[in-house]
Amino acid sequence: MGDSMKKLIDFYELTMAYSDLKNGKSNEKCYFDVFFRKNLDNGGYNIACGLDEIIEYIENLKFDLKDIDYLRSLNTFDEEFLDYLKNFSFKGDIYGVPDGTVIFPNEPCITVCANAMEAQIIETDLLNRFNHGSLIATKTRRIVNEAKGRGIMEFGARRAQGSEAATVGAKYAYIAGCIGTSCYETGKRYGIPLLGTMAHSHVLKYENEYDAFTAYAKAFPENSVFLVDTNNTLKSGVPNAIRVAKDYLMPNGYRLKGIRLDSGDLAYLSKKAREMLDDAGLNDAKICVSNALDERLIKDLLTQGAPIDSFGVGENLITSKSCPVFGGVYKLAAICENGEIVPKMKISENAGKMTNPGYKKVYRFYDNKTGYALGDLIALYDEEIPKDSYTLIDEKEEWKQTKIKNYTVRELQVPIFKNGKLVYNQPTIKERKEICNKEMKTIYPEIERINNPHTYYVDLSEKLMALKKDMLFKGSQYSADEPLVK
Amino acid sequence: MGDSMKKLIDFYELTMAYSDLKNGKSNEKCYFDVFFRKNLDNGGYNIACGLDEIIEYIENLKFDLKDIDYLRSLNTFDEEFLDYLKNFSFKGDIYGVPDGTVIFPNEPCITVCANAMEAQIIETDLLNRFNHGSLIATKTRRIVNEAKGRGIMEFGARRAQGSEAATVGAKYAYIAGCIGTSCYETGKRYGIPLLGTMAHSHVLKYENEYDAFTAYAKAFPENSVFLVDTNNTLKSGVPNAIRVAKDYLMPNGYRLKGIRLDSGDLAYLSKKAREMLDDAGLNDAKICVSNALDERLIKDLLTQGAPIDSFGVGENLITSKSCPVFGGVYKLAAICENGEIVPKMKISENAGKMTNPGYKKVYRFYDNKTGYALGDLIALYDEEIPKDSYTLIDEKEEWKQTKIKNYTVRELQVPIFKNGKLVYNQPTIKERKEICNKEMKTIYPEIERINNPHTYYVDLSEKLMALKKDMLFKGSQYSADEPLVK
Repeated sequence: MGDSMKKLIDFYELTMAYSDLKNGKSNEKCYFDVFFRKNLDNGGYNIACGLDEIIEYIENLKFDLKDIDYLRSLNTFDEEFLDYLKNFSFKGDIYGVPDGTVIFPNEPCITVCANAMEAQIIETDLLNRFNHGSLIATKTRRIVNEAKGRGIMEFGARRAQGSEAATVGAKYAYIAGCIGTSCYETGKRYGIPLLGTMAHSHVLKYENEYDAFTAYAKAFPENSVFLVDTNNTLKSGVPNAIRVAKDYLMPNGYRLKGIRLDSGDLAYLSKKAREMLDDAGLNDAKICVSNALDERLIKDLLTQGAPIDSFGVGENLITSKSCPVFGGVYKLAAICENGEIVPKMKISENAGKMTNPGYKKVYRFYDNKTGYALGDLIALYDEEIPKDSYTLIDEKEEWKQTKIKNYTVRELQVPIFKNGKLVYNQPTIKERKEICNKEMKTIYPEIERINNPHTYYVDLSEKLMALKKDMLFKGSQYSADEPLVK
Repeated sequence: MGDSMKKLIDFYELTMAYSDLKNGKSNEKCYFDVFFRKNLDNGGYNIACGLDEIIEYIENLKFDLKDIDYLRSLNTFDEEFLDYLKNFSFKGDIYGVPDGTVIFPNEPCITVCANAMEAQIIETDLLNRFNHGSLIATKTRRIVNEAKGRGIMEFGARRAQGSEAATVGAKYAYIAGCIGTSCYETGKRYGIPLLGTMAHSHVLKYENEYDAFTAYAKAFPENSVFLVDTNNTLKSGVPNAIRVAKDYLMPNGYRLKGIRLDSGDLAYLSKKAREMLDDAGLNDAKICVSNALDERLIKDLLTQGAPIDSFGVGENLITSKSCPVFGGVYKLAAICENGEIVPKMKISENAGKMTNPGYKKVYRFYDNKTGYALGDLIALYDEEIPKDSYTLIDEKEEWKQTKIKNYTVRELQVPIFKNGKLVYNQPTIKERKEICNKEMKTIYPEIERINNPHTYYVDLSEKLMALKKDMLFKGSQYSADEPLVK
């Protein structure tokens, strides 16, 4: 279990659950959607992740005697409620998209159907893990894409937001396309490849760089990647790496595996270093770089023809520094009253905060000729999706209509829990990495572009759109966009 | 222990330790400094935090059989090294600034004196916890300062980077000035006040807002804080809150505790809501707001006279969204060779990446008249600091000199571990909160300003400056700022 014994529960989940119990609402079946409103980092797509952690949490969620004692000490809840918590386990249904799935704004990525109290109590942790997983997976994929097949190594542990963000974050990064991580705990826990050789301190510990490289080469003759910028990359680091290759490695039957550049102009230095290595007959020595890398800098370096073989990425990946929040929310969409599913909707004064009502499903249309995804459709749960042709209609600009045919439809969410029982056969980490790679192949390059990408179609069915409009107008005594009145 | 059993170790710490062992360097005593290069968020000051987590980690750090088996399976290390790890415990010294201390760029906040292998193995986790703690504490304090005495509530669990970032982050936030948190796990683990009442889902579950508020009031008559923006704040939410106060709370001997605004223009709505509450005789009902708050928005709302009593702050605090990385580094400063401390220094091609050599101490001068901090001095460990007058000299612009007298000097770092034994009597969380408050009172308001703050003086002693120059010139065959040569 490890971390998952932590119960991440916003206090208001408990006060609402208590109020539900006291007001006879505890057994009402609710439908909650997890969705987000904007692509991360002004991008065109996002990668779902974190489901594995959610599953572990839900399966193990219970309140032990320490919890009960603590809750009693707050003088906020009565014994009936504490008894309820003593016997708590999640008994509802959860549907969700597999880790590695490409996802877009406003579509339900996870749907929870459970009684009011259970649905409320799991909210915070479920959101936290979905948000963290999707944050790191999406950011990673943006970086991996720009490296055009070169390896991205996750090197961010020291800058992550706590040790779990490092450990679990590196797992998400691997699923989304990194070739490995520097994080020991991640390697040990998940069997993910460990990477890294030396820091500047290793070089400084010796009389000079040559001695430091030689010492390391003796310890790891098959894995000699020397950090060459402690003094001066071109005047000292690279020449010493070449000398040690010739003086020690080659006479002992080994080759120089590579060098790492960690400061200076990486395009200029990698070109000069490549020339020096090639001139020394070390064409097979790789050049690895690090230092404040992200998708934009990697793209620029490669555009300038930098002969770099792999990139070590730290804080920009592990915190998603340019956009460190994946804004997933958990919103009530419907309540089951007397056997009938009654849609619910928040009508906000911020139009962007309105929700889509009803119990819904999400479908993706794939072009049978190209295999590319054409658009997504959010529909009410009981709608039939036509198999031959369909017209996608933009929610806000209804004149924007796209008629599609010769497609295959896929429902994005799959059952994860049924009546509290796990029914999902979770793919391994390597399988999830493959899922992510396959998913990306279905997305137009125009959508992957990091600058001003094409907007993927995510439309509402006509029936859902009609329901939403109806509920908005019925609620129009509460004008949504009210002018300020002084 | 909980989380701390995780071992956050960059793989290169282990390969370097292995190389140290193989090359007879494992027992050399090293001095490593933890420092950072820039104020967070272009601010003028920072708050140190995370020492408590570092202490827990160091005290419990060991390699169990699962670790050894895993490491053996990598086919990278030999049995001598694995035996060393089997018996590993930290046996060195650590000095550091207490949690809650105000800290500035370039000064050593933590100094580790230990043999090469131990010092290397603890690097990653120590940095991770120092960086995360100081990130959240600094960001929190910036927000708390701008609220001018009004309460800041930590509400970020769902947007934190994983569940530990939420749980531990909320503790740091409390130390740095928050009045409490929504995070159950933080409340339970650390005894920190829990806050929060209801979400929109609670309102939507009922036929109407009036029923929802009444139901909540019945469950928590003493703690009725109603969320008033589910439909329309001024036309529905506030009037219903007032009705429930009059129809249910007051007849039963209770008062309306408050309302929460979570969308719309918070300055406008809080003023209108205040008028409505006051007109209804509910002058004691508090107004709490949330929705994308940070230090800048809080400052603007209060400048516009918004009658807000407390602020719930989410993602902007718990991820330090505007600047989500605290860039603490861990750099070799000296090595003990034959009983002599030999200074070490990284000469980088990026001038900003150069380090200060030698085993050092940090001193803060306080004005005896005002109690304000006047400047910090980084000196070599064996320098005497004059007690009567001192001239602070700017490192880069040496003509900038500040002569000070009538001061009290304080050494910032205190002993934490001696020969691997904890010698620090860790203050309680409440005491650390007090430390932070007291520290802030010693800082000029000009330094606290969020826009273009005054730069606090952190200068090097003449002796340290001379040493640094000497090492730079000796290393000048490696010109630090080399022009590109094509």
